[in-house]
Amino acid sequence: METKELIKSFYDLMSKISAYDHALAILNYDGATTAPAGTAANRGHAMAVLGEEIYKLSTSDSTYELLEELDRRSAELSPRDVRAKDIMLKDMRDTKKIPMDEYIAFQVLCNEADDVWHKAKAGNDFELFAPYLEKIVKAKIAFAGYIDPDKDPYDFWLNEYEEGISRKTCDAFFDSLREQIVPLIAKVTEAGQVSDAPLKGHFPADAQMAFAVYLMDLIGLDREHVGISTTEHPFTTSLGSHLDERITTHFYEERLDYSMFSVIHEGGHALYDTGSDDDLAYTVLDGGVSMGIHESQSRFYENILGRSRGFIQYIYPKMCEFFPSLKAYSVEDVYKAVNRVEPTLIRTEADEVTYCLHIMVRYELEKKLMSGQMQVRELPKAWNALYKEYLGIDVPDDTHGVLQDTHWSGGMIGYFPSYALGSAYGAQFLARMKETVDVDACLSRGDFKPINAWNRENIWKFGCLKKPGQILSDVLGRDFDPSYYIDYLKSKISDVYGIRL
Amino acid sequence: METKELIKSFYDLMSKISAYDHALAILNYDGATTAPAGTAANRGHAMAVLGEEIYKLSTSDSTYELLEELDRRSAELSPRDVRAKDIMLKDMRDTKKIPMDEYIAFQVLCNEADDVWHKAKAGNDFELFAPYLEKIVKAKIAFAGYIDPDKDPYDFWLNEYEEGISRKTCDAFFDSLREQIVPLIAKVTEAGQVSDAPLKGHFPADAQMAFAVYLMDLIGLDREHVGISTTEHPFTTSLGSHLDERITTHFYEERLDYSMFSVIHEGGHALYDTGSDDDLAYTVLDGGVSMGIHESQSRFYENILGRSRGFIQYIYPKMCEFFPSLKAYSVEDVYKAVNRVEPTLIRTEADEVTYCLHIMVRYELEKKLMSGQMQVRELPKAWNALYKEYLGIDVPDDTHGVLQDTHWSGGMIGYFPSYALGSAYGAQFLARMKETVDVDACLSRGDFKPINAWNRENIWKFGCLKKPGQILSDVLGRDFDPSYYIDYLKSKISDVYGIRL
Repeated sequence: METKELIKSFYDLMSKISAYDHALAILNYDGATTAPAGTAANRGHAMAVLGEEIYKLSTSDSTYELLEELDRRSAELSPRDVRAKDIMLKDMRDTKKIPMDEYIAFQVLCNEADDVWHKAKAGNDFELFAPYLEKIVKAKIAFAGYIDPDKDPYDFWLNEYEEGISRKTCDAFFDSLREQIVPLIAKVTEAGQVSDAPLKGHFPADAQMAFAVYLMDLIGLDREHVGISTTEHPFTTSLGSHLDERITTHFYEERLDYSMFSVIHEGGHALYDTGSDDDLAYTVLDGGVSMGIHESQSRFYENILGRSRGFIQYIYPKMCEFFPSLKAYSVEDVYKAVNRVEPTLIRTEADEVTYCLHIMVRYELEKKLMSGQMQVRELPKAWNALYKEYLGIDVPDDTHGVLQDTHWSGGMIGYFPSYALGSAYGAQFLARMKETVDVDACLSRGDFKPINAWNRENIWKFGCLKKPGQILSDVLGRDFDPSYYIDYLKSKISDVYGIRL
Repeated sequence: METKELIKSFYDLMSKISAYDHALAILNYDGATTAPAGTAANRGHAMAVLGEEIYKLSTSDSTYELLEELDRRSAELSPRDVRAKDIMLKDMRDTKKIPMDEYIAFQVLCNEADDVWHKAKAGNDFELFAPYLEKIVKAKIAFAGYIDPDKDPYDFWLNEYEEGISRKTCDAFFDSLREQIVPLIAKVTEAGQVSDAPLKGHFPADAQMAFAVYLMDLIGLDREHVGISTTEHPFTTSLGSHLDERITTHFYEERLDYSMFSVIHEGGHALYDTGSDDDLAYTVLDGGVSMGIHESQSRFYENILGRSRGFIQYIYPKMCEFFPSLKAYSVEDVYKAVNRVEPTLIRTEADEVTYCLHIMVRYELEKKLMSGQMQVRELPKAWNALYKEYLGIDVPDDTHGVLQDTHWSGGMIGYFPSYALGSAYGAQFLARMKETVDVDACLSRGDFKPINAWNRENIWKFGCLKKPGQILSDVLGRDFDPSYYIDYLKSKISDVYGIRL
């Protein structure tokens, strides 16, 4: 067969797989947003069948032959086609190593586990969730073993979520962060706390939803292609391609900042995904390339832009329109409130400075779970001990402790470190962006266009064309260096708390 | 192969197809409820791929051989397996006659047409929708011709939505209805109009949603398996099986009755579907058997139960809790208001008496479209002329005229008559139910259990095990007779308008 025909078959295959992915994604999204409580098993039936089809498509003999043949003809392919083939081939070789029944069972397990996790969290009942998490950990270890038996299972999954990282690099990164952050927190405590009173009160869900939509428009999301819903835990999902993106949030009527910053965070993910060049749709090259780069965007919009002095100054009058109680406070009060540093229980509500400590807790626990050093049933106790050690606080119950995050119920073990890495990438991206964009001036006038244009040109439009390491080196022009992040945090704290660091 | 093995393969196939149907249904549902406005084409991509898979599953050589072999071994099968095989075999033989590219193109067309219809309706722009409807009519005529070239295309589709009916039976049914209903309307006009003031005012969407949920519980829907959302046009859909059912409604804040009765109507559909015996799930025997029987249930709950004197007496105090403005009116005022007879523009808001006239308009137009006697572009004028002729009213624009219903955009031509037939079935079912259930007493105490139990035992639990004609003859013990319906309407009008008929 001619190479041109092979390439056509390859793109047809990717297009087909994207349709199945679309179906699975919408089933998941529906399960998290609007499905009645008793329908998980019924949904699981469809997901099992469709998951099996994806498995077959990805691992069939004809797919294998097609990809291996394309691999042999790499010299005849465009760089774009080579990259797509490489991604598919790695996936295929990996997936083929997992027995099909285990692969399917894992999809079904995660669907059920998500349902059980919701109930367990609502009822503060870790025991209910534990058997599911045990199965998930077991499957994650087994799958890593099937695919790369010589690699440590946790190293395997860290590298899956962010190519190039391992326990070794994470240990080094987190150790240096911890060394710097713990003293910072001590200094803040000495300086005297700023008030978060502006963010407390009664903020009706309706007004928060209207504000969320305003924020989506403001940061430049195209609402013809990006929707918003509410869920227990905010997330972003692509349906089939970057042409249909959904973000979710959660409204706490007594707090303003949770939904506000979760919308900007998920909005950052959605900007990245929807920024893919349109001709990448229905290929494996569509959407964000890795969790680390994804979080570099989401946390960039949420924190570096969203909690900046310039942005808060711009948005304060608008916030007063949506939430009149804010008029009792100055813009400076609001700026300080959204940047208050304080060890707290919930990761997604954590400030920028303590945030990485929340990640380190999860990282340490995942490391032990995946090595077999710790059993799932020991998790709550270990979780609470680490929160005491790192953040100095007591965890009152599992709902506000080990059950707070959705990731494990979805099978995402090894994901958390990418949040911290992404935060650090973002700080270094900012330094580069400032070389050509007057970021502070843009924020002061609520103009995201030049910022988005820079991100699109340097990061978004490539989708998965470049590996994460390539994005980093092309954007940064040098090695990744966490000290940008430390400097950024220090500068923020100096400004908010009026202290010299 | 042993028959037992063949039967297992057959059930596996049905289970697989139900998963694909689930995916298509959730994609449709999402499109109608929460999808961003610009995502129809992206959704169409997934639907085209999955639709093609269903087509292949339903028409592949192996499916063909399996079903034909089962057909040859009918004597060895249980009646249940014979019925499932017959349904699949008819579907397969029919579908195989449609060229695959046309079959797929039709799925995509309907997805796009639905999107365009929303825009056309919002913008009163029939010209925008016309090219899509032209293609839909053309495809419906072509498909009928592929499947049964000797049958009139409209007769074909009438029979598809309700086995056993044709233009001949519909003409007779509608002629007798029209003969009886038009004089009734004249008598009502002479008697002097009752007021619908209790239903007008300001009824916040939040309160209407809370009331909708209350109604769902009251009529006996299991909300663990039945969800509610809002859409332009209310509908009910099963996702994968009767274990996940969704109803939708639309809130007009200035009118109370629209959402109230649409929820009870769609609730009737959902009661019927979810009432299937659980072991029918993931087979072609699951859920309601025909549109006519479906509408007999939905319109039974909406009108015969929902607008009854007993039910309104029971629910009036509760309505006052949700909507305090009702306290200014008596229960008698509310009873009369929800039963006010008046020719109006919108089918879904029509009273019980004029309702069938709305159906007759659509029936007459479909008949002409499908026979080629009329072109799509002539529809608005013809629509308006028939509304003048049958209902005596002027249609101000296409939004409130020919563009009001979603059915045609979804390819459902031939569906409308089943609404009228279902209404008439329901009146005769009521007479039978009253032989063993004190329906009036149940309604007066808001107790739907005995009513639902009767419907479950006689209709719901069978799913598609019995043909519609079998359901009718088993329930009725005699032939279907529209005079029950005429008598029911006369009795209602006598009561509401205080006139002798």
